[in-house]
Amino acid sequence: MAVKTTILDMNRFDAANLDALDARKRSLIERRAALGGGYRLFYRDPIEVVRGVGTHVFDEQGTDYLDAYNNVVSVGHCHPHVVEAVSRQAGMLNTHTRYLHETILDYSEALLAKLPAEIDRITYQCTGSEANDLAIRIARNYTGAEGIIVTSEAYHGNTDLVSGFSPSIGMGQELSPACRLLPTPDTHIHGDIAVGDFIVEQLKACIADLRANGIGFAGLLVDSIFSSDGICPGKAGWLKKVADTVHEEGGLVIADEVQPGFCRTGDAFWGFARHGFVPDIVTMGKPMANGIACSATAVRHEILDAFTANIPYFNTFAGNPVAMAAAKATLEVMDGEDLIGNARRIGSMFVSQLEGLAVGHPSIADVRGAGLYIGVEFDDPATGDPMGAETLALIEQMRQRRVLTSNCGAYGNILKIRTPLVFSAADVDRYMTALEDSLTALHI
Amino acid sequence: MAVKTTILDMNRFDAANLDALDARKRSLIERRAALGGGYRLFYRDPIEVVRGVGTHVFDEQGTDYLDAYNNVVSVGHCHPHVVEAVSRQAGMLNTHTRYLHETILDYSEALLAKLPAEIDRITYQCTGSEANDLAIRIARNYTGAEGIIVTSEAYHGNTDLVSGFSPSIGMGQELSPACRLLPTPDTHIHGDIAVGDFIVEQLKACIADLRANGIGFAGLLVDSIFSSDGICPGKAGWLKKVADTVHEEGGLVIADEVQPGFCRTGDAFWGFARHGFVPDIVTMGKPMANGIACSATAVRHEILDAFTANIPYFNTFAGNPVAMAAAKATLEVMDGEDLIGNARRIGSMFVSQLEGLAVGHPSIADVRGAGLYIGVEFDDPATGDPMGAETLALIEQMRQRRVLTSNCGAYGNILKIRTPLVFSAADVDRYMTALEDSLTALHI
Repeated sequence: MAVKTTILDMNRFDAANLDALDARKRSLIERRAALGGGYRLFYRDPIEVVRGVGTHVFDEQGTDYLDAYNNVVSVGHCHPHVVEAVSRQAGMLNTHTRYLHETILDYSEALLAKLPAEIDRITYQCTGSEANDLAIRIARNYTGAEGIIVTSEAYHGNTDLVSGFSPSIGMGQELSPACRLLPTPDTHIHGDIAVGDFIVEQLKACIADLRANGIGFAGLLVDSIFSSDGICPGKAGWLKKVADTVHEEGGLVIADEVQPGFCRTGDAFWGFARHGFVPDIVTMGKPMANGIACSATAVRHEILDAFTANIPYFNTFAGNPVAMAAAKATLEVMDGEDLIGNARRIGSMFVSQLEGLAVGHPSIADVRGAGLYIGVEFDDPATGDPMGAETLALIEQMRQRRVLTSNCGAYGNILKIRTPLVFSAADVDRYMTALEDSLTALHI
Repeated sequence: MAVKTTILDMNRFDAANLDALDARKRSLIERRAALGGGYRLFYRDPIEVVRGVGTHVFDEQGTDYLDAYNNVVSVGHCHPHVVEAVSRQAGMLNTHTRYLHETILDYSEALLAKLPAEIDRITYQCTGSEANDLAIRIARNYTGAEGIIVTSEAYHGNTDLVSGFSPSIGMGQELSPACRLLPTPDTHIHGDIAVGDFIVEQLKACIADLRANGIGFAGLLVDSIFSSDGICPGKAGWLKKVADTVHEEGGLVIADEVQPGFCRTGDAFWGFARHGFVPDIVTMGKPMANGIACSATAVRHEILDAFTANIPYFNTFAGNPVAMAAAKATLEVMDGEDLIGNARRIGSMFVSQLEGLAVGHPSIADVRGAGLYIGVEFDDPATGDPMGAETLALIEQMRQRRVLTSNCGAYGNILKIRTPLVFSAADVDRYMTALEDSLTALHI
């Protein structure tokens, strides 16, 4: 029986490896003690990153790394249009939203135009965690119920409230008594379409259990690409019946678009739109302003009104002119450079090449993706057991070949490919060469 | 009997006043409907702020306003050293803390050098709310108890957890069952020194009540300038016996330095240092990076270790190179321009002039401040009742004279003067002239 991954098994530097590093890295790592034990570095040989351009980052010696991991810099590291917007606004004004300022309005209108007409209000926070924290409070206020359902490996953020609905944190983090878990919608096991019926059935059981315990059902909080569950896009549309069931049962659907939103899946601007349903609340963060802290909660007005009538909410840094200038510029690049189209085209090419590679590598049990969010599952060809340790070794091999990528899933056996959206065909070639060489080196 | 202020009584635009505004403002305000009812504007005639320099902001017509309200831009609006640092770093790299980067280490060392030696770890978040949310979790983890004590008008942030310990939110926001309230340490009533004994007595009663209810005592979360309580600096040192009592009772002291930290009080870099005690956890935010989202939680290592051993915590945007560059540049300006000294000198001059003004205005019941955080209390000279409505009218009069200032306290009768730290003697003159004229106009 496979043992579930914990945070300790993830891609991280182990202090036991310190002596193998050069003097500068040893010194930097030793200085990081001031940040406490929560600050974990990637890789056995951590990278000092000092510069970024497009899909590449560079270390202090000028060595380049292909970035197939970082989705925050979705329009590419240091995109000149975003850098210029941030620099210009930082030199003009940066204050809060209790004065009038036009950029927040221009941006809000542009973003609401990307959302279904029913989602007609947008409020700003600084992090995805803050957005999800607020979304849960809004859903509870509206439904008068407490229960929130998430998937069994979900991660929705780091506040006290949201941590209780983020089972992937593991270790000593207790789940909220009002949390119920759906199994990972594993399309590899259940199939791209049948997975919907399976999840609906599980959802109904969770709702019944919440009601039986007097907790009530407030809603489903869902990342429609199921990132930390191991990347389960499935066939576009399968999630709609799950959302419909939530609504039939009187709950709200909170679409956590921190991962699948902003062109990522290539099929639509939002992850939920790929599935053809309309959520009640949409939270977003990471890629929104290409790295400047910015997040948002978009809500149907009747649901937001019920909250703001009860509870004043103010967030000092949220929606400030610099964050809004960065977000606006990021959106302009997404539209201007057709990054949905690029995610679709390059993602499709990427999946084809990975499927081709799988033919000669029986440990590749599944290749699945939507746009530039792709998972490659590694299972033992003989036993079917997840190959978590080997996948972690693969990440290190890729790093040695100067390609940044990661792993995810309950057993850590899913290679996670989540590139900046400006990834090119040449970048795919480089990734594939490194991957093939790494698999050969590991004999998997 | 005076009625407590609610959020509805604060300085805010009322839609009933819309028709009195020019077409551009009406249009901007109507467009703000997209942000929902939570977004409140200051003033009956809101200001469109488009540019800021030092202690001044400018509206879209180039009219200047003296800023005696905004503490986020503590080193002044658009300080060139901070703007340059942000622009340079935004063009170089902006990513997360799982790669090595030197700026976070340089900054952390500089900031830890400002803290007592016992506080030897620093972790980053993006907002003061996130810092206080984490601080409460850390305190609970360490003590194994749930109860947190705050003052009766405290505001510590907007997450679900922290909202439950922010009684000043009022309206439909329920307090946590683990929250106990100390009365405002009103130095005007109790005296600058005696207030300490009064609060100690109240604190002991709160702790006993938490224990009697099986909640236990985790700690005191305290803003040592008592901003939303109405600004109660008192005489430097009075709070030490309160902190000592917390420690004697086995609780932790969490110093919320979002308001009093970073040179504000003129007596010391931190608000708690003004009182001569050492907290266990220090949270900080607003003025830290002059407007770029950045906050932190500094902790004694044994307390942080106990948390990180249990619970993984990661915050994507926190401590990113742009935020760290902004924070580092801000700190360099604070030191380089001796802003502690400026806060002390200008604050002292300010208080003297306010006290002089009080001689001819019996409605000024009290003038109190530490550095550039000053409160002026307005009470009816005949009855002693708080003059909340008049203080609100005063804010509007000041706005008409192009001076931004605010009010606070349970009854809204405290004029709140909280300027950028680069406030000059000439700025004080302008403020005083506007204040005198405003008082005359209002006949108070």
